[in-house]
Amino acid sequence: MTRILPTVTGPQDLRTLTRDQLVQLATEIRERIIEVVGRNGGHLASNLGVVELTMALHCVFDFKTDRLLWDVGHQAYVHKLLTGRNARFDTLRKAGGISGFPNTAESEYDLFNVGHAGTAIPTAVGMARGASLVGEDRRVVAVVGDASIFNGVAFEGLNQAGTLRRQLLVVLNDNSMGIAPTQGGMAEYLAKFRVSTVYEDLKRGVKRYLPQVPVIGKPAFNALDHLKDAFKATLSPHQIFEQLGFVYVGPTDGHDLEHMIELLQLLRDVQHPVLLHVHTQKGKGAEWALADPTKFHSPKPFKVEGCRVEIQKGGVSYTAAFADALIKLAQEDTRVFALTAAMPDGTGLNKFQQLIPERFLDGGIAESATVDIAAGMCKAGVRPVAAIYSTFLQRAFDQVFQEVTLQGLPVIFGIDRAGLVGGDGPVHHGFADIAYLRVMPNMVLMAPGDGPEIEAALRLALSLDTPSAVRYPRDTVPEPLFKDGATPPFELGRSVRLREGQDATVLAYGSTCRAAMEAAGQLAAQGIEVRVVNARFAKPVDRVMVSESMTRGGPVVTVEDHSVAGGFGSAILEAARDIGLAANHVVLLGIPENRFIAHGSRAGQLAEVGIDADGIARAVREALGAPPTAGGATLQRHRDLSYVPTVDET
Amino acid sequence: MTRILPTVTGPQDLRTLTRDQLVQLATEIRERIIEVVGRNGGHLASNLGVVELTMALHCVFDFKTDRLLWDVGHQAYVHKLLTGRNARFDTLRKAGGISGFPNTAESEYDLFNVGHAGTAIPTAVGMARGASLVGEDRRVVAVVGDASIFNGVAFEGLNQAGTLRRQLLVVLNDNSMGIAPTQGGMAEYLAKFRVSTVYEDLKRGVKRYLPQVPVIGKPAFNALDHLKDAFKATLSPHQIFEQLGFVYVGPTDGHDLEHMIELLQLLRDVQHPVLLHVHTQKGKGAEWALADPTKFHSPKPFKVEGCRVEIQKGGVSYTAAFADALIKLAQEDTRVFALTAAMPDGTGLNKFQQLIPERFLDGGIAESATVDIAAGMCKAGVRPVAAIYSTFLQRAFDQVFQEVTLQGLPVIFGIDRAGLVGGDGPVHHGFADIAYLRVMPNMVLMAPGDGPEIEAALRLALSLDTPSAVRYPRDTVPEPLFKDGATPPFELGRSVRLREGQDATVLAYGSTCRAAMEAAGQLAAQGIEVRVVNARFAKPVDRVMVSESMTRGGPVVTVEDHSVAGGFGSAILEAARDIGLAANHVVLLGIPENRFIAHGSRAGQLAEVGIDADGIARAVREALGAPPTAGGATLQRHRDLSYVPTVDET
Repeated sequence: MTRILPTVTGPQDLRTLTRDQLVQLATEIRERIIEVVGRNGGHLASNLGVVELTMALHCVFDFKTDRLLWDVGHQAYVHKLLTGRNARFDTLRKAGGISGFPNTAESEYDLFNVGHAGTAIPTAVGMARGASLVGEDRRVVAVVGDASIFNGVAFEGLNQAGTLRRQLLVVLNDNSMGIAPTQGGMAEYLAKFRVSTVYEDLKRGVKRYLPQVPVIGKPAFNALDHLKDAFKATLSPHQIFEQLGFVYVGPTDGHDLEHMIELLQLLRDVQHPVLLHVHTQKGKGAEWALADPTKFHSPKPFKVEGCRVEIQKGGVSYTAAFADALIKLAQEDTRVFALTAAMPDGTGLNKFQQLIPERFLDGGIAESATVDIAAGMCKAGVRPVAAIYSTFLQRAFDQVFQEVTLQGLPVIFGIDRAGLVGGDGPVHHGFADIAYLRVMPNMVLMAPGDGPEIEAALRLALSLDTPSAVRYPRDTVPEPLFKDGATPPFELGRSVRLREGQDATVLAYGSTCRAAMEAAGQLAAQGIEVRVVNARFAKPVDRVMVSESMTRGGPVVTVEDHSVAGGFGSAILEAARDIGLAANHVVLLGIPENRFIAHGSRAGQLAEVGIDADGIARAVREALGAPPTAGGATLQRHRDLSYVPTVDET
Repeated sequence: MTRILPTVTGPQDLRTLTRDQLVQLATEIRERIIEVVGRNGGHLASNLGVVELTMALHCVFDFKTDRLLWDVGHQAYVHKLLTGRNARFDTLRKAGGISGFPNTAESEYDLFNVGHAGTAIPTAVGMARGASLVGEDRRVVAVVGDASIFNGVAFEGLNQAGTLRRQLLVVLNDNSMGIAPTQGGMAEYLAKFRVSTVYEDLKRGVKRYLPQVPVIGKPAFNALDHLKDAFKATLSPHQIFEQLGFVYVGPTDGHDLEHMIELLQLLRDVQHPVLLHVHTQKGKGAEWALADPTKFHSPKPFKVEGCRVEIQKGGVSYTAAFADALIKLAQEDTRVFALTAAMPDGTGLNKFQQLIPERFLDGGIAESATVDIAAGMCKAGVRPVAAIYSTFLQRAFDQVFQEVTLQGLPVIFGIDRAGLVGGDGPVHHGFADIAYLRVMPNMVLMAPGDGPEIEAALRLALSLDTPSAVRYPRDTVPEPLFKDGATPPFELGRSVRLREGQDATVLAYGSTCRAAMEAAGQLAAQGIEVRVVNARFAKPVDRVMVSESMTRGGPVVTVEDHSVAGGFGSAILEAARDIGLAANHVVLLGIPENRFIAHGSRAGQLAEVGIDADGIARAVREALGAPPTAGGATLQRHRDLSYVPTVDET
């Protein structure tokens, strides 16, 4: 049989295919996704679930002029395959290859670079109003999952959308799963309506009213009214959306391609906000993925052999070390309570949940509320630890301010995915948490340099009466920094020296400590002896250490897996100035202030921004004025660095 | 007649009063609030609206052990008067006096220092779960307005609350108003049910079931079921809350004190989340406030003379200058579109709305969605300008990142209330926006030094193809910095010199320019000549200016109405280091890193942190080593400042 997918150059080709060919294409798309994700890792189950829905959307709308927004965006693989990116799809998530999320640089069909949940609806409202304002006739469609649609931003968007007096189609892709099972009262409510019989009723409804083919305005609307009535009789979750001003249609079977096409044709030109509620299955087409959609939400590379699927194993991650440390501390202290926002697996807390379920809460894709819940618990005498990715904690900035910092409540934040994240790319890098938390009064910011330091940092955090945060990257833990488990305890605002050397000083923050030590090893082999300091704290920074580092002679290199704008290095500069010391001999290594680092391997990204061992060694050599490539030659030391450390007179 | 209010030392005293005495007390409370707010300014209409509701809550619950959370918190005056703060209430919003918001330092009855909307429900969920976890038997009540309850965070909280299996009472205080009329689909929906007849039905319902006096658990629940049925018959907005898992009761008349007490007694011990929907009137008890609750939401001091009410007038505010400039630019360029999040009056955009309604959107108390809507519009070819207070833009941090910065969309943010805000205090200070926006790649950050510079800054913003923000304080505009309207245009990353002087350099950002000029005037009279630079940009900073400032000799003082952690001064230090220049002779003036500045007058706050003219002059003298009080004596100049500017070798 001739393969169809390679012949699809764009959505227009879909419209020439027969029904049978479309069915075959759906199968080929699933095979292609399983093949590439199996090799590269990536988002699997969600993409397998939207094959027919995506095909139907591209059959009925023309997204050259119409606008399609994917909420979160991890479910856009099918969309990519159908919009001319099949040939390059092998490069998924690789450096220079296809992004795992919608990417405006890749295709005119990708409108927003996204990755965070809940924003497609308000963005769609803006695009719809914008199109009307500039006098362009564009239909706007947003596809949103059932976990995301009850995120606060999505709800705010729905509330605004309901007042639109023009076309807007929101497709609720309901698979009863976010990344983990969907949380909250609405999830329980929606669950009541997941009964297969309604599909049949729906189909009958559509068939009955389809002869009244849609035209813009009143006639289509009348047909729609009848359609709605047909659904309502089946007792569906229409009220909430209707209360918000939407015409609600559904629920319907999102895997029945022909039916989806018919339905979308009927809804396409309705000049009113419409919510189409579609039921799909995460992992559809792969029994093993269907059976465990959480495991196959975003797996590492895997191999399928018959019914056996083997996912590639990595080393021990910072995430796992965090979870283990937290479990240990929770077993010692019954006040410890763990929270996550829809990421029990991603944060490693699923293990905590299994062991101590009564002290675990998954707040759903609702970081803002999750932080407030933690604050309320803390006020009540509990010691909450909220594990949230750096990029997602951005969504709770104001709650970290108002409910936590302003009260001085000792809520602890476990900031996972802090720093460069590899394949997920710019939308997921934790590049900003130091900057956005450092401005919070009395916040304590820590970063462990290895696995054992996570426990040490959390132990200090639990002893504090102020808010604190412990940041760690999406990476495996390195060889321990201290031998024989002799990790010194964390003391507030105190750094630890890891290696001595008179030529230069490297101040490493968090996970960059190991790279700094490796750089020091390389440099030692070239005759350059470097002191390496494990800074441990970005707030408060160790002022004794800063003072000594600035005045001891030799360049000082700060290293952080974070933007250099307002980050750890910036805090060092501020501290030096406070003490009255010159800092023009300091070199700040980190993510450049004005660049988004593209997806690729984390190792490649670290190298790109120069915070791997080679980059740190290179920076030290440059600061010393040593030639860029050392070979094995003895270096001329530049001891006459032209700065004069002084103490401020004020 | 003996006045009752002065005799109320705490909520327990309420319970000894007769029905008639309670009615008298309500009147006295209103008189007291009008008297003090008339003198001090503050939140008026919202507090007049919750007199009976607050009294009823304190009659029925004992908030020594039970927990009461006020959403936003600007409606807590009655609560303050009833919890022992009547005698000190004259000091409302004054330095050292009673705060205009719940304040944990004032009273054990105030649990959270709040001021931002939507967070009481998730916080209450946390407190309820926390109390259960630590084994304490506490009832938890949250009072939330109708505009706030459909804020994203509140909705996320409702969604979590619905799954609680214990007592939680959410009182929806529905007055069809936020600060401005409530926006969105839900507001339109709720409006349908604002018919007085339902009150009557409700009262009948309560009377019928009241004999079944509440006891914990089943019996109360049965009574409640009947009660709900009685309401349902009247067609009420119960569905959305029931879908979220709440027992919905209402709507009912929030000004009928006796009835409210009966109803709360019935609901007090229900072991399930309950939403009580109460109708109140903003401004109740003062005809003039009832007639224009937006005007009397948070008025300046006013005088009531018969039916005439005169509100104190201030000078021209930065807010008004911003609005006027934006209107002018919108009249020149039809792509300009203005957005606010529930603050048409506060941001001055009500004027824009009146003149150009088709290019204005009030997104409601939904900063996140409002920013996304702006991004969507921008993508569609519109030039949106979102005017949001600094403290509230914190709520859209992630949308500024994902939908705006990551796309590189030239959305413009008008950041009102940037800096110290006076009477509203710590929860409203715009102390963090430079820090949290400076980390955003390619964001342009500007601050005008006077009224005309607002227009100049906006004009540049409209010419950019990157996101930008213009920050300005809650203050009147100063005397213009440039004579005869000769404000030089804003050029990207270019500062402007305001005054020449060889002894020291002051780098002033935004509204601190005028104070810097006044300081320079004071110092000149003492024989110290200071160069004053209007920095205009915090990102990108003017590197030529930084280079020259660092190397010209004499101390450099940076001034910003913002935290010194990661702010403008920090950006100057980073730039100096980038160029390779020592900055140990720089003094950073701004809000201290780890302090919350209490409410009081803005002038007092500026003086407290040392960024008024006196503070700047003092800092310059200190940096020069001049004696603290100069009198008129000639100063010994310290030209031998012990720093040696150098150029980095890298």
